[in-house]
This record gives sequence, structure tokens and C-alpha cells, in this order.
Amino acid sequence: MRKVPPTDKPFLKACRGEPCGFTPIWLNRQAGRYMPEYHRTKGDLTSLQFFKHPERAAEAALDAQRILGVDAAILFADLLPILEPMGLTLDYPVGVGPVFANPVRHERDVQALTTSPAAAATPYVAETIRNILSALPTDIALIGFAGAPFTLASYAVEGKGSRNYLFVKKMMHQAPALWERLLAKLVDQLFSYLDLQIKSGVEAVQLFDTWVGCLSLADFRHHVLPHTKTLLQRLRAEHPTTPLIYFGTGNAHLLPDIAALEPEVIALDWRWPLGPTWRDLGCQAIQGNLDPMLLCTDRRTIAREAQAVLDSAAGRPGHIFNLGHGITPETPVENVKFLVDYVHEHG
Amino acid sequence: MRKVPPTDKPFLKACRGEPCGFTPIWLNRQAGRYMPEYHRTKGDLTSLQFFKHPERAAEAALDAQRILGVDAAILFADLLPILEPMGLTLDYPVGVGPVFANPVRHERDVQALTTSPAAAATPYVAETIRNILSALPTDIALIGFAGAPFTLASYAVEGKGSRNYLFVKKMMHQAPALWERLLAKLVDQLFSYLDLQIKSGVEAVQLFDTWVGCLSLADFRHHVLPHTKTLLQRLRAEHPTTPLIYFGTGNAHLLPDIAALEPEVIALDWRWPLGPTWRDLGCQAIQGNLDPMLLCTDRRTIAREAQAVLDSAAGRPGHIFNLGHGITPETPVENVKFLVDYVHEHG
Repeated sequence: MRKVPPTDKPFLKACRGEPCGFTPIWLNRQAGRYMPEYHRTKGDLTSLQFFKHPERAAEAALDAQRILGVDAAILFADLLPILEPMGLTLDYPVGVGPVFANPVRHERDVQALTTSPAAAATPYVAETIRNILSALPTDIALIGFAGAPFTLASYAVEGKGSRNYLFVKKMMHQAPALWERLLAKLVDQLFSYLDLQIKSGVEAVQLFDTWVGCLSLADFRHHVLPHTKTLLQRLRAEHPTTPLIYFGTGNAHLLPDIAALEPEVIALDWRWPLGPTWRDLGCQAIQGNLDPMLLCTDRRTIAREAQAVLDSAAGRPGHIFNLGHGITPETPVENVKFLVDYVHEHG
Repeated sequence: MRKVPPTDKPFLKACRGEPCGFTPIWLNRQAGRYMPEYHRTKGDLTSLQFFKHPERAAEAALDAQRILGVDAAILFADLLPILEPMGLTLDYPVGVGPVFANPVRHERDVQALTTSPAAAATPYVAETIRNILSALPTDIALIGFAGAPFTLASYAVEGKGSRNYLFVKKMMHQAPALWERLLAKLVDQLFSYLDLQIKSGVEAVQLFDTWVGCLSLADFRHHVLPHTKTLLQRLRAEHPTTPLIYFGTGNAHLLPDIAALEPEVIALDWRWPLGPTWRDLGCQAIQGNLDPMLLCTDRRTIAREAQAVLDSAAGRPGHIFNLGHGITPETPVENVKFLVDYVHEHG
């Protein structure tokens, strides 16, 4: 294989808005339950053990990249284990999703949260990254990631997935000073966590703000944006050349404010058309935005809909093809491979 | 009480974009589980029995209007019982939400769906309306409602609430002709259902398109909008003076297309600021848009946030105050009353 200088990797060129000869593609949750190799690698580990197992987690990340032929691998991990060493008791009951036994609701709960250097708190992440890098093809980029401050806070406060975000919104409005302290602690730990990932070798980082779309623009501006901004500024100051991808769903109303923070890449869900939204936001690169449910249909449909996304981007340099959310467990692997090949051929 | 000519009811004037001296208010799911009177009226009926019980359903609607002092009552019913006489087996298991035992997935399922005049299929709705009208104060409007074609179809196809809408999107893309036939049948039944409601005396109708926000703009345009348009056109042709309110959540990307159908009122969720969105859409009246979770906070917060909505509307005639979604069961009744009084005093 031709040796590619790190900064010439197609994915990284696209992050900088530079042409790279084709449309690079990777997929949210590309290493996941839809893939038989994932289950083989997981073996009899619990989900939490799997995320914290540097050899097997690296294998999951590498398998997905190799099997699909995508242009980036992503650290195999989860959004929530960062909260464990802060003092939250995390479990993934089968069929339920993540649950915290001691959600953050009161003054004393925020008080009790501890921050510590990520190298001590979450050392397995650095090890996983080193293991991935030791076997990653030289033209493939490695992406690190973390939950964005709001999405992490919403899990910590609700204690589990939520439909209404009642406790989050109550804290935001009824105990704003407490909310501020919670977010400040999370930003500290997130900075250390992403700093460790970048120092360990990831070449871009994606912030997952999966649940932020539940907020009004006013709530986002007053109670969330300043913290997201602080995190981005600290990362940029320390790692000025590492692209940051900001991802959310159902959050089109918040994206102009996010674009003003100038993340290198804004990732869109499938709701808004990619081309016009990109123009409106004015960001240097855009990621997205096929509806992941379409991967559960057939090749003809996938080709048509992938082409519609490519047409919407119109070949503008800086388009990274991805889904608008993660691959779901019922997705046929063959369809995912077909999408990757299609985009490489036609993008 | 002063006798008000029906068309001078404040709520109806606001629907027409006319000034009415104050900001009228009613609340989605104002008759609901948060209210002790609701449970007393329901007694030992199942949810489905309650919806179909003309006396008790009327009592629930009247209680809510009287206790809260809102400017409109809304028919007490649910979105889904319309599907029962079409052939779907509906149940509301406690703590689960509505479930269809025989969801619509295949050719034969769509084939088996029957349409019939609403007066025969759902006669209890007409009776409930007559019962409400016999006791409703003369200055209070009565709103009828139904699920919008997409939201009804998504329940029928998924068989229950959904996070991904996998089966809906598969049918839309893989069996578009089948999807068209399903939507056409639903529109036929919905027209008959709303026609019956209007002939029985409701003075406005709200279409709940609660789940439509899961769709891309392209999917909405190709697979949903034509059916919504047909329903609106048929209603307008038959009942040209009955205002139609179109409600959705997470659907800002779809609203310009909806506004082009010229429903009298567009109801907004809490995500986008009301004033600028109203200007952009250019509709004659707007409904919304307080985050319902704020009703679980305290009076100071509710007053501040309600005032922000009023400030955003800036006194423009045609603003109907409402929540951006329904009242949740944990909401204190006192807070809801406080909101209504606040809006009447300051709006």
C-alpha cells in the first residue's frame, strides 16, 4: 500500500474543505450490533467490559473499517463510561439501554462528582487508540469522540434515555447555578478525555450532541452554548490542527449558533436537505446525511437516496458522506457495504 | 353570562387573525391524567372505553375547560380509535401506550382495511360533541381533532409508538404504491370523521401530526404532503369557514410546505422562536409554543417563560397561546391554572 502522509488522508482533507478526488465516507456506529464480527469480538463480555477492553475494542473498530472499506475508523467506545470515574454507577441492562443507578439531581450529587486526568480516569481509551493505530492502513484516519456537554449532562441527570427531559429542564430552570456547575465539571472532564485521545493519536474528534434537539433555541443559548463554546475553545487552543465534528439530531434550530463557533465540520441529520443547509451555515465541511433507516431497504432504494445526497452536495469539496444517525442493529451488513461502494464510485 | 355570537368567540377571532382584546389560550391534552377530576370521571373504565363513552368523555372535556378557564374546550378522544372500525385491534395496556395487535405491513393488510361513514363507524364522537355543546359556556369554542394522515399511518404500520419508524419508512420506499393506497384510505376515513365532528358542532379542527418530524423533507414532499393536501382541500370545500389548525413537533423543516396549503392556524412546538417563525411562514394565525416541561417548574419560571412567548408574538392578532406539545401526567394542576391566568392577564 502506498504510504500516505498523515495530513493527506482523504477524510482529513475533506474536514479541511479541500478536494480529495472522491467523497470520503464513514458511518456513525459502523462498529455495532448489526455486524456478526462485533458479536464474535464481544464474546461473553458485558457491554461495559467491551468498551473498556483495549484489545477487543480495537478489534471492533478495525474490523468495521476493514469490512466496510470506509475512509475513517472511529474509536470503539461509548458516550457514557467517562462518567463512571466521576462517580456515577453505570450499567447496560440487556434490552434497556444505559442506566445510572445514582442520577445527578441535587446539590450534593453535583458536589460529589469528581474530575481527574483522563489518563488516570479512562486509561483504556488511550490503549485502545494505540492498538487501533498499530494496525490501521496509512490512508485511513482515526476519529475520536465524546458526548457533547448537554447530551452527557442529560444522561447524568435523567439517569437513562428520556423522552421529555423533565429533570434536565427542571434543573436548568429551577437551579441554574447548579446546572452551571454540573456543566463546568463535565467540560473539564471532557477536555481532558478528548485531549488524551488526541495525544494518543486520533486525528479528528466528533462531539455527539444526540439529544440537544429537545431544547428551545433560548434554553440552548442560555444554558448550553457557553459550555460547548468553552470546550471547543480549549480544544482548539491545545490542538489547533485537529478537526472537530459537531453532530446532533433534530437540532437544525441550533446549528446557526453552533456554526458561529466554527467547528471544522458540522454533521447533519437526514431531515434538512444537505446542500441548502450547508450554504446557509457557511461551514467549511459538512457531514451527512442519509436516513439510516434506508439501509434497511434494498440496493435500488439505497442507490437512489445516496445519489440524492451526493446531488445535494453537488461535489463541493468538504462533503463527508455519513448517515444522519447511527446504524441500527437490524441493518443488513451487505446493504452497508453496498452504500460505501456506491459512494466511492459515484461521489 | 353575556351571549356571544358564535363567530365572535375570542378563540375563533384569533384563528381568523382578528384582534380579540387579549391572547386566547387552550392547552394540548388539557383534559388528561395530571388532573384528579380526570381520574374520577374515568372511574373503572379502560382508556378505550373512556374515549368511547359519550357522557364521561364530555364531562372530561368540560371539566378541563371549566377548571382551567381556557378559551376553548377540545373534544375528549384519542387519535387512534378511528382505526378500530377500519379493522385494527387496539388496546392501551397500562404503562405501555397504545398497541395494535395487527399492524399494517403487507398488501393484504391494506386490502383488509375498510372505510365507512363516520356516523356509523364512530358515532360516539358525535354524541360526545353534542353533550359537550349542551353545557359549554357561549363564549368558549369547541375544537375537534384527528391524527394527520402520516401520524395515523405511522401508528397503523408500526403497531405502537416508535423511535425509528423503520416499518413506515420501508413501506414508503419499498412499496410506495401500497403506501399510497394506505394513505388514501386513511384520508377517506379522516375526512368522514372530521366532517362528522364539524356537522356535530365543533367550530375548529386540529390535525395532530405528532410524529411527522421523523421524515426528511424529500420523503414528506413525495409520500405525505399530497395526502395531507387532499384532506385539507376536501375539508375546505365542505366547510369553508371552519378553521383548521395544523400541529406537529420537530417539524420546522416541513412547515413552509404546510404553510403553502394555507391552514388557518399553524401550531408550533417550543423549539423555534414563535415571532420570527410566524413572520417566515406568513400564516394568518399561529398557536404555541411554551415547552410543556416548564409547567413542572414553578410560578416564577412559568411567568418568565410565558412572558417570553408573549413578547415573541408581540401582540400580533392571531396568536393563540398553547404548549408546544401535550401536558404530561406529572404536571401540577395549580401550575397550569397559573399559566392560564398569567396569559389572560398579560397577553
